[in-house]
Amino acid sequence: MRLSAYFLPTLKENPTEAQIVSHRYMLRAGMIRQATSGIYSWLPMGLKVLRKVEQIIREEQNRAGAQEILMPTIQPADLWRKSGRYDDYGKEMLRIEDRHGRDMLYGPTNEEMVTEIFANAVKSYKDLPKNLYHIQWKFRDEVRPRFGVMRGREFFMKDAYSFDIDFEASKAAYNRMFVAYLRTFERLGLRAIPMAADTGPIGGDLSHEFIILADTGESEVFCHSDFLEKASPSSDVDYSGDLQPIVDDWTSIYAATDEMYVKEDFEGSVPEDKRMQCRGIEVGHIFHFGTKYSEPMGAYVLNSEGENVPVFMGSYGIGVSRLLGAIIEASHDENGIIWPEAVAPYQVGLINLKAKDEACAKACDDLYQKFNAAGVDCLYDDRDTSAGAKFKDMDLIGLPWQMVIGPRGLKNGVVELKNRKTGEKEELTLEAALSKLGL
Amino acid sequence: MRLSAYFLPTLKENPTEAQIVSHRYMLRAGMIRQATSGIYSWLPMGLKVLRKVEQIIREEQNRAGAQEILMPTIQPADLWRKSGRYDDYGKEMLRIEDRHGRDMLYGPTNEEMVTEIFANAVKSYKDLPKNLYHIQWKFRDEVRPRFGVMRGREFFMKDAYSFDIDFEASKAAYNRMFVAYLRTFERLGLRAIPMAADTGPIGGDLSHEFIILADTGESEVFCHSDFLEKASPSSDVDYSGDLQPIVDDWTSIYAATDEMYVKEDFEGSVPEDKRMQCRGIEVGHIFHFGTKYSEPMGAYVLNSEGENVPVFMGSYGIGVSRLLGAIIEASHDENGIIWPEAVAPYQVGLINLKAKDEACAKACDDLYQKFNAAGVDCLYDDRDTSAGAKFKDMDLIGLPWQMVIGPRGLKNGVVELKNRKTGEKEELTLEAALSKLGL
Repeated sequence: MRLSAYFLPTLKENPTEAQIVSHRYMLRAGMIRQATSGIYSWLPMGLKVLRKVEQIIREEQNRAGAQEILMPTIQPADLWRKSGRYDDYGKEMLRIEDRHGRDMLYGPTNEEMVTEIFANAVKSYKDLPKNLYHIQWKFRDEVRPRFGVMRGREFFMKDAYSFDIDFEASKAAYNRMFVAYLRTFERLGLRAIPMAADTGPIGGDLSHEFIILADTGESEVFCHSDFLEKASPSSDVDYSGDLQPIVDDWTSIYAATDEMYVKEDFEGSVPEDKRMQCRGIEVGHIFHFGTKYSEPMGAYVLNSEGENVPVFMGSYGIGVSRLLGAIIEASHDENGIIWPEAVAPYQVGLINLKAKDEACAKACDDLYQKFNAAGVDCLYDDRDTSAGAKFKDMDLIGLPWQMVIGPRGLKNGVVELKNRKTGEKEELTLEAALSKLGL
Repeated sequence: MRLSAYFLPTLKENPTEAQIVSHRYMLRAGMIRQATSGIYSWLPMGLKVLRKVEQIIREEQNRAGAQEILMPTIQPADLWRKSGRYDDYGKEMLRIEDRHGRDMLYGPTNEEMVTEIFANAVKSYKDLPKNLYHIQWKFRDEVRPRFGVMRGREFFMKDAYSFDIDFEASKAAYNRMFVAYLRTFERLGLRAIPMAADTGPIGGDLSHEFIILADTGESEVFCHSDFLEKASPSSDVDYSGDLQPIVDDWTSIYAATDEMYVKEDFEGSVPEDKRMQCRGIEVGHIFHFGTKYSEPMGAYVLNSEGENVPVFMGSYGIGVSRLLGAIIEASHDENGIIWPEAVAPYQVGLINLKAKDEACAKACDDLYQKFNAAGVDCLYDDRDTSAGAKFKDMDLIGLPWQMVIGPRGLKNGVVELKNRKTGEKEELTLEAALSKLGL
């Protein structure tokens, strides 16, 4: 993409309304614009990253055997009256009346709806297990939206729902999502730590929040530093096999949010030099809730004995739009964003130092064609502006590599290649630079 | 995908609520389920087709130079007060009050919002032309939703908005979308005919509806039969060149909906044996509206003389979810859907006639692996049900090819290959059958 044609309205100044770095950088890098409190439009570069994050989540959900559906944003209130949550949910639920006076709502989550879809279609244990997920916009009318996409009102979320014949099978479904989440966050360039979460009236130990560490995190967390080095399950992990050993391995060392923190347990089980007390951001939550929804919503199947029994369910969420903020909170410096390769909007930024120099423009145009032909996604700064402005914008945008071409270098047969993360700059021949980028 | 594991709840009976064939087949083929009046959930196979249609639309928008953004579903009412449409829009607009009593709405369209985004970012003619589009869920509170996804309340739509410095440039933008639409519908396996549409108070001739012919169409149309044979622009059409000759070619012969129909013009310009009077479904609409929104919303830029002028705009819609219904209306028979190759959920359906026969199961499993390895998207009916039920489901689902394997054929070294569209069945060696599928 040529920057001269791209819709990328970067900002030089920090917007006053943005309190945290991810919000500031997403606005400044032209990724999002606020439509109204807690509601954002995604501009081309922000949307590109959002789609990459979404696709990685989708691939790992599919790999783990979940099947994608898409439920609507607007739901009838009657569904929620059936589960009893319509009155319970409070003011966070955006309630709507349609032209015929029927009560509707903008879905904040989908347990009721997916359970109804399942209940109307599946009648026998032979059709289990099932895991249905969707990636859809949701709405929670936060009383005080803030932190950009980290705590918005309209937000993009992946939510999966598992249906199983009994607790044991439901636990296996839970484990599949546990492992899929480890893989998902690893691929996103994040180290997410599963921490035991409150299971409320359901009880048991099948609820985990996945939390990444960042100074601006919303909650205090306590964990063993070994988590930082742990290897995630590989892409050939066998989802039809027993995943309990992996789950045990990841839950056997201490990790807790302040809500679940017990000082004695932490200090008793973690050596002093391994104790980490820091701040974290929740990016995923998995939860087993048994028959809480299947009973009121009538999701019963025949078991192998011919009895009609309610299915055991779990739900598994990842905040997709929130993840963009979380990634930036975890990966940035004072000059801007530092995108992990897997979700970078473009792999390389090509800077023409002197757009009006014919030879320089020709060299850059040729290189841009070469990148396109090789399938390397390149953002080409062909604008007629100062070198300083171009460097600043490119650092702010945070692509993994910058290739800088100017008239002087061209004369000497060299280009400059900069790694955004390390800051390392090298003068190389074009061939050597391309080979560093894998071409 | 193995059908035994797939969430594909097909129905044997025609649902009584469905009046038209696309609605019936989408329900029966397990593509959608109604959540409430005019609001649908998309099950895995329906979503798969929806995404394919969406992707073709996206590719052709990008090719024509449009840039994808994503605006939220919920909009503040103040935006619409600025344009004057908040009071005008009537009961089709879903109006919402948030917890703080602020007026909001579920966007039925996005002229106001995109104009505001543009106006805040672009200040000079040098940054034009721009075309921003998004593919997002919208809501129109139809008084009587019907025909499934053809006239739903929550619907998926691509809407693009062009911004140009003057009428001439805006007309070129219009022509790019005109050509992109011809290509899009062609790729979707549809023949869409551009028909002049009412421009209202704006005047001029820059408004076209794209209409496909189908017996169940909502409106009566009159056109020259030459449209059926016209070649669409090829993929290497030059969007930076002059597209007027293509637009002229496609608008020089007669086509009109009943709203715009003039008997004398039709009969005067079309020879009797070329006159078609039939029913049509609107699948796209493009519209130039000049400064209608840029003036009230303050979208002004400096022109080359240094004057501040309102930009010229157009909008360009395609009903993405509606297209699935339209494709089925245009392509089906009494047994079910007949998907055009480009949007078929799977390319081939593999039917194991006898799931309990070990040799047969092994042959089918091997073939399924082979399809997967070759990147052929295959739906494998490995269920232990009757051959008759399998044939019926596969015809209903409407994949382009069916490959049938049974114990008897295996003994003779042959499989049956059926083309869903022509109904032609052949007994072939496995090698010959695979080579027919391009393997």
